[in-house]
Amino acid sequence: MWELFYPGGTLDCLVPMRRTVVAELEKIVGKERMSTKTADLYVYGFDASIHHVTPDAVVRPASAQEVSEIVKLANRTKTPIVPRGAGTAMCGHTVPVKGGIILDMTLMNKIRKISVEDLYCVVEPGVIYDKLNAELGKKGFWFPATPGSGEACTIGGMVATNASGMRAIKYGATRDYVLGLEVVLPTGEIIHTGTRTLKNSSGYQLDRLMVGSEGTLGVITEVTMRYTVKPKASGMTVAAFNSLKDAGQCVSNIIAKPLLPSAIELMDSVCIKAVNKCMNIGLPDCEALCMIEVDGHPLAVDEEMVTVEEICRQSGAVSTEKSRDKKRIDEWTFARKAIMPSLSRYGEKFVSVALADDMSVPISKIPEAVVAFQNIAKKHGVIIGTYGHSADGNLHTKMLVEPYSKESWRAGEKAVGEIYDVVLGLGGTVTGEHGVSITKAPYMKKERADSLGAMKAIKKALDPKNIMNPGKMFDWEGSILYELRYPAFQEDKCAPPCGPSQPCDGEQ
Amino acid sequence: MWELFYPGGTLDCLVPMRRTVVAELEKIVGKERMSTKTADLYVYGFDASIHHVTPDAVVRPASAQEVSEIVKLANRTKTPIVPRGAGTAMCGHTVPVKGGIILDMTLMNKIRKISVEDLYCVVEPGVIYDKLNAELGKKGFWFPATPGSGEACTIGGMVATNASGMRAIKYGATRDYVLGLEVVLPTGEIIHTGTRTLKNSSGYQLDRLMVGSEGTLGVITEVTMRYTVKPKASGMTVAAFNSLKDAGQCVSNIIAKPLLPSAIELMDSVCIKAVNKCMNIGLPDCEALCMIEVDGHPLAVDEEMVTVEEICRQSGAVSTEKSRDKKRIDEWTFARKAIMPSLSRYGEKFVSVALADDMSVPISKIPEAVVAFQNIAKKHGVIIGTYGHSADGNLHTKMLVEPYSKESWRAGEKAVGEIYDVVLGLGGTVTGEHGVSITKAPYMKKERADSLGAMKAIKKALDPKNIMNPGKMFDWEGSILYELRYPAFQEDKCAPPCGPSQPCDGEQ
Repeated sequence: MWELFYPGGTLDCLVPMRRTVVAELEKIVGKERMSTKTADLYVYGFDASIHHVTPDAVVRPASAQEVSEIVKLANRTKTPIVPRGAGTAMCGHTVPVKGGIILDMTLMNKIRKISVEDLYCVVEPGVIYDKLNAELGKKGFWFPATPGSGEACTIGGMVATNASGMRAIKYGATRDYVLGLEVVLPTGEIIHTGTRTLKNSSGYQLDRLMVGSEGTLGVITEVTMRYTVKPKASGMTVAAFNSLKDAGQCVSNIIAKPLLPSAIELMDSVCIKAVNKCMNIGLPDCEALCMIEVDGHPLAVDEEMVTVEEICRQSGAVSTEKSRDKKRIDEWTFARKAIMPSLSRYGEKFVSVALADDMSVPISKIPEAVVAFQNIAKKHGVIIGTYGHSADGNLHTKMLVEPYSKESWRAGEKAVGEIYDVVLGLGGTVTGEHGVSITKAPYMKKERADSLGAMKAIKKALDPKNIMNPGKMFDWEGSILYELRYPAFQEDKCAPPCGPSQPCDGEQ
Repeated sequence: MWELFYPGGTLDCLVPMRRTVVAELEKIVGKERMSTKTADLYVYGFDASIHHVTPDAVVRPASAQEVSEIVKLANRTKTPIVPRGAGTAMCGHTVPVKGGIILDMTLMNKIRKISVEDLYCVVEPGVIYDKLNAELGKKGFWFPATPGSGEACTIGGMVATNASGMRAIKYGATRDYVLGLEVVLPTGEIIHTGTRTLKNSSGYQLDRLMVGSEGTLGVITEVTMRYTVKPKASGMTVAAFNSLKDAGQCVSNIIAKPLLPSAIELMDSVCIKAVNKCMNIGLPDCEALCMIEVDGHPLAVDEEMVTVEEICRQSGAVSTEKSRDKKRIDEWTFARKAIMPSLSRYGEKFVSVALADDMSVPISKIPEAVVAFQNIAKKHGVIIGTYGHSADGNLHTKMLVEPYSKESWRAGEKAVGEIYDVVLGLGGTVTGEHGVSITKAPYMKKERADSLGAMKAIKKALDPKNIMNPGKMFDWEGSILYELRYPAFQEDKCAPPCGPSQPCDGEQ
C-alpha cells in the first residue's frame, strides 16, 4: 500500500495541519516514512467500519523512540494522534475523527523473542496474529484468541481492543495473555508495565488497563505475552435444529454437563440460506446450526464428541454429524467463514455492514436474543443475519443496508438501538470483542453509565491535552451514522475529505 | 472473633478519631457492627505481615449501600479507610498505617448466584475461597487459582491482590477470572465494571485495573467471576535432584517439551531438612525436590506422567516416584504445605517471617535465583528456606529472624534488598501473588520506576483526598521494618498502639 505515497511528491494537502508540524515529523522519521499526499490520506481515512475521515498526515515509526518523539510533538502542538495496526477495526477505531496524525505501526513487525522454556514471547505491535501463531506452532505452542481477522490483524490492535474470537470460552481473550507492555504515554514518556513472568501483583496492573483502551491512553510499542500448548487433537460436531430455542438450550446443556468445548459456532436460518445460496455448500436447511469444537488429548476428544452428540440429540437436534477428519472440519469451518461474504452478496442492492455486530449475552440468553433480533429486523424492514461464538454468548449480526438510501440507514440505526436495548436488558454487553470507538459509543455509554466518570477521570489524568485518539468511546457525541464511508449522507457531511482537522480544545 | 467487641461497652479509644465520625458510623451500621474498643482495635491492627498499627474504628458493613455511606463519611471527613477480608495478607495490606477505619468485609459472605449454564458466579467479597470451590465443585466446576491460604482467604482479598498459587502456569491468576465488579469509589459512588458475559470490549477494563489495586482505588462489594471445568484426574511425580541447577533445568525441559503441568512445586535443601526434622515425613534427603502435578483426562494424565518421569531422569533426577493415588498425593501435598510451619519451628529463638517472600522470575532463571538467595543468606548470616511454584517462576523464601534482635532484623533487611536486586536483574518481579503494600513497597518502586507517575496520576484522579488505604504501595516512604509487630524496635516506634491517626493531608 505504501507505493501510494509517491515519495518525493509535493506536500499538497497542508491546509489543515501546520507546515511546522509536518516539517518536524519529517525530521523524526524522514520523508520516506511519512506522507501528506491526498491519495495516501484518503486511504488512511478508512478501516473496516462504516466511517471515513481523512487524516492530516500519516507516519510510519520504526521504534519506540520515534513514537515517543512524535507523541511529544503532538502533545506540544495539541495535534490528535491515532495509532493504527492493520485497519481491521469494525467500529472506526483508526478513523481520525478530529484529523491529525495516523501512526501506522505496521513497520514495527518483529517477533523479538520466543522464550520457549519461559512460556512468553516479546513482539512488536505490528506483528500479524497468524504469523505469530505460525512461529509459536513450530514449537508446539499457540496464542488461541482466534480473531476472525487473524490473517491480517496485528497484535497491537488486538491488545488495543481486547480482541478475541470463537475460542474465548476455553481460552479467554487477549487480555488474558498480555503479561506486559511497553507504552508511549500521551506525554511521550516510555513506560514498561507488567512483567516477563507468568504472574505479578506488583502495583497497578496498568497493562490490563491499556488492553481495550483503543489507543486513547497511549501507543503500544511492545507486547510481552504468554501462550499455551497447542492441543494434540480436535474434533467437530455439526448439529441441525428446527428451532433456535433448542439450539440455544443445547449450548447451555453442553456447558452445564459440565463439558468445556473449545468453540460452539451458531448460525441462524438467514445465514444458512445465504451460505447455501452463494457458496453452494449444502448445509442442512434448518432454523439453526451449531458447530461444536472440542480439543485436547485425542482420546478425550473422542469421548467428548460422543457426549456432545448425545446432548445435541437430547436437546432436539434433528441431525448430527461428527468428525475428526481435518478435511471435513475445514469444509465446515469454510462454511462458517463464508457467512460474511455470503451476506454481502445477498442481493445486488445491499451491502452488509458492521452495525450492532458484536454483542455478547449470558450464554443461556442466546435464543431469546436471536429471536428478538429477528423480530426487530422484521419491524424495521431490514435484513439481519445472526451468527456467532455462542459458547461465550458472543453474537454477530450483519445488517444488509442499501448504501445510497438514507431511509435504509435510518431504519438500520433504529434497529440497532432496539437490538442493544434487548442485549442490555438480558444482562449483556454491546461489544464482546470488537470494541467501541464510534459505532458502539452511544450504546456503551448506556451500558457503562455509572462508570463513565471513572473512565473520563483516568483519561484526563493520563492524557490531559486529549491528543490520543480523541472524540471516541465516552467522548463520542453524535450519531453512529456520522461520516459514513457510503454515499447516502454525503451532502450532509460537515467536513470534506481531507477537511480541516478540529483541534482538541479550540487551539492548535 | 467478633465477641471481642463487648457490645454495649463504652467507646474508650476515641482520642484520635472525632466523636462525630464515630457517631455517624454508628448511625450507618448500628452499635453491634462497629467498635472502638481497645482490644478490638488492637486485634484489627494485624494481618499476616510483620507490621502492626492500630486503627481508630472497625466497622462491619452488610451491603454496598452501607459501604457507600461509610465511604462518603470518610471522604467528607478525610478519614483513612482500609478494606479487610480475612487478614491473610503478607505485606501489611490491611494494616492502617494512617489510622482511620477498618472496613471488615467478612459479613458480606454470600454466594449470590452460580449460573452453571452461563459459566459465571456472583459472590460477595467476604466469600472464602475454599467455600466457593466447595459449591462450584458440586456442579463439576472450580476456580483454580489455589492460593496457599485458600481455607481462610476471601475472594475480595484475592481480587485486591491478584492472588494466585501453584496452578497459575496452567490456570492463570485471579485477574484472569474476574468478569466484573461492583465497586464503591472513594467518592462513595457505586459503579459496576465488566460484565456477566465471558468477554467484553466495552470501554476501559476498570475491573482489571481494580484487580491488584490493594484497596487504594475503592471498595469491592461484589465480584462476578468465571470458572472452569474441574479436571477428571490428576497425578503427581516427585523427583529428587542433587543439584538445584538440574531441578531448575528440569522445570524448563518439561515446559519446552511442550507439556503444560498444572503445577510444579520446588523445595530447596533447607526446606527439605526442616520438613523432615519437624514432621518426620521422610522426603528424599537431597539438594532439591520437584513435585510435578498434571491434570486432565485420566488417559492423558497417565501418558503425561510417563513423559514427565522421562524428562526428570534425563534432567538428572536421582530418584523419581509417580502416583495417581489420592492418599499418596495427599502425603506429598502435606509435606509441601508443611514447609511454612516447619521453618517456623526451625529453632526456638527464630520466627519465620514474610520478608522477600514472593518474587517471581522467568522460569529458566530459577536455579540462578535460588543459588543467589543462598549465597546472600550466607553473607548476612541469616537462614533462608526457598520453595515455590516453580512452574510459573514464583519463589517463596522464608527468612528466620530472631524477633528480639535488632541486628537480626537489620541483617534480614539487607538480605532482602540484595535478593530483590538479583530478582530484578534476572527480569523478575518483586511479587508474583502477594502484593506490595508496605513490605515490598521500596522494591516495587524500583521495579516500576518508569510507571509510578502513571499509577499516582490514576490514584489521584479516582481518590483525590487519598482516603483509600493511604500511605501504601507507591505512597510508602520508609523502611520495610516500620511498625513491626515484633518487640525488637518497640521503643523506636513513632506511634503507640492506638496512637493518634495521621490525617491524610494534615487536616481532619
